[in-house]
Amino acid sequence: MKRRVFFVSDRTGITVQALGQSLLTQFPDTQFNMRTLPFVKNQVAARNAADIIRAAREEDGVAPLVFSTLTDPATQYIIANSNEHVFDLFGTFIEPLEDALGQESSHTAGRMHGMADVTAYERRLTALNFTLSHDDGLSLRDLSESDVVLVGVSRCGKTPTCLYLAMQYSLKASNYPLTEDDFERSRLPPALENCRDKIYGLTIQPEQLSRIRHERRPHGAYSTLAQCRREVSLAETMFRNEKIAFLDTTTVSIEEIAATVVRDRGLR
Amino acid sequence: MKRRVFFVSDRTGITVQALGQSLLTQFPDTQFNMRTLPFVKNQVAARNAADIIRAAREEDGVAPLVFSTLTDPATQYIIANSNEHVFDLFGTFIEPLEDALGQESSHTAGRMHGMADVTAYERRLTALNFTLSHDDGLSLRDLSESDVVLVGVSRCGKTPTCLYLAMQYSLKASNYPLTEDDFERSRLPPALENCRDKIYGLTIQPEQLSRIRHERRPHGAYSTLAQCRREVSLAETMFRNEKIAFLDTTTVSIEEIAATVVRDRGLR
Repeated sequence: MKRRVFFVSDRTGITVQALGQSLLTQFPDTQFNMRTLPFVKNQVAARNAADIIRAAREEDGVAPLVFSTLTDPATQYIIANSNEHVFDLFGTFIEPLEDALGQESSHTAGRMHGMADVTAYERRLTALNFTLSHDDGLSLRDLSESDVVLVGVSRCGKTPTCLYLAMQYSLKASNYPLTEDDFERSRLPPALENCRDKIYGLTIQPEQLSRIRHERRPHGAYSTLAQCRREVSLAETMFRNEKIAFLDTTTVSIEEIAATVVRDRGLR
Repeated sequence: MKRRVFFVSDRTGITVQALGQSLLTQFPDTQFNMRTLPFVKNQVAARNAADIIRAAREEDGVAPLVFSTLTDPATQYIIANSNEHVFDLFGTFIEPLEDALGQESSHTAGRMHGMADVTAYERRLTALNFTLSHDDGLSLRDLSESDVVLVGVSRCGKTPTCLYLAMQYSLKASNYPLTEDDFERSRLPPALENCRDKIYGLTIQPEQLSRIRHERRPHGAYSTLAQCRREVSLAETMFRNEKIAFLDTTTVSIEEIAATVVRDRGLR
């Protein structure tokens, strides 16, 4: 039987889920049945969550694992009393932090939707709209307004990375697909000349590129291994000639590509 | 002086940053200067990170706060010895978890890029491509292949939510913008008839909608408060008539809208 696991959060649960899952990968011999209980924002919601946890305990005959990131102590108290294995990923660190900072914590639930958050929210939406309207070099006119411009052959991972950069880092990310015209010149495309300091190159192994392209367009030269090899080789030559930093995306997740671009370009 | 904070991760740092920032909001009287050190994957990278932390300590004359989620104990050891205030958000829970599960942890760094991850990666890219090609009702033909279809007036938050649903939950999310034709009928648009069980409605306060639309298109009826009031009212009437669950996105973040849709529609 799979061991039941609950992730309990007063917001979306993304963070407690990510950290909890990462902890559970340290126990590869056990299979887990995971469920996220988001928006446990008050004591009523906490009692509902505690009921779900107790019911699972009864049904399975074994205590589930519960990971929580609740900021309100009263709400956490209800969850902590629902079950013997509750891992409080938030409260565990409050006292040590109070010691380190020499002050008491405010013990309040996450303060959201203040003015700072409205501004952050709008910056993010602006970035996302910018990125959507600059996908695949659709609008070159104001490329130079970008925070970062990803350059590479078609289907090497530019679009998902741009969307993630906009969503997660609120960066105006645009992308420029390299085409035959650019390869012939073997120089930086003229459109990119005045945003040279914002460019980051992406590359990919030709075999993987061919596979990805084949799914999209199985016929014609576009997806053949020969064509992919040629384009990747010409793109990498151009990156080297122009001294553009670039990253091989073949075995790297979208999050990791984005974090690498942010670090290497010194963004934020 | 702002208290220096470092988030140290062997991957992107998104999780340690989210949890660390959430903990720091409990200390509203202190200002923090935060920096993320991602990809601390081995002892060389850990020693570099430790040097950065020690340099900050020396420069500020006060120990920074360090939050880490390193899975490799040897790497964590180097960070833990760099500074007196290191909060090990990962290792802290390994022993209690070993006790709860009655087994030893494997003490290995995050196992990524196995076959399971490749499949997950491809499912996610498929979802993202699907979502991009179904943005704003562009392609109605295979709407029914969607996992979820967001319905609402123009600019109420459908597109960013769809992208987040695809990126974070690997869901094929499409969206359908309600237009005059739909309002006149006051019924579910015919295109949506055969995906009724996948529909989720979004609404927004007319004042906010008018403000958002005004930024995009300042002239004409589109962004006037009267027009926004009318559209929102007609959309909500339709949702009620058709018994479609809907959410007001006015003060809700993209993550929260997405998590609500996932929970309410029982996805995953």
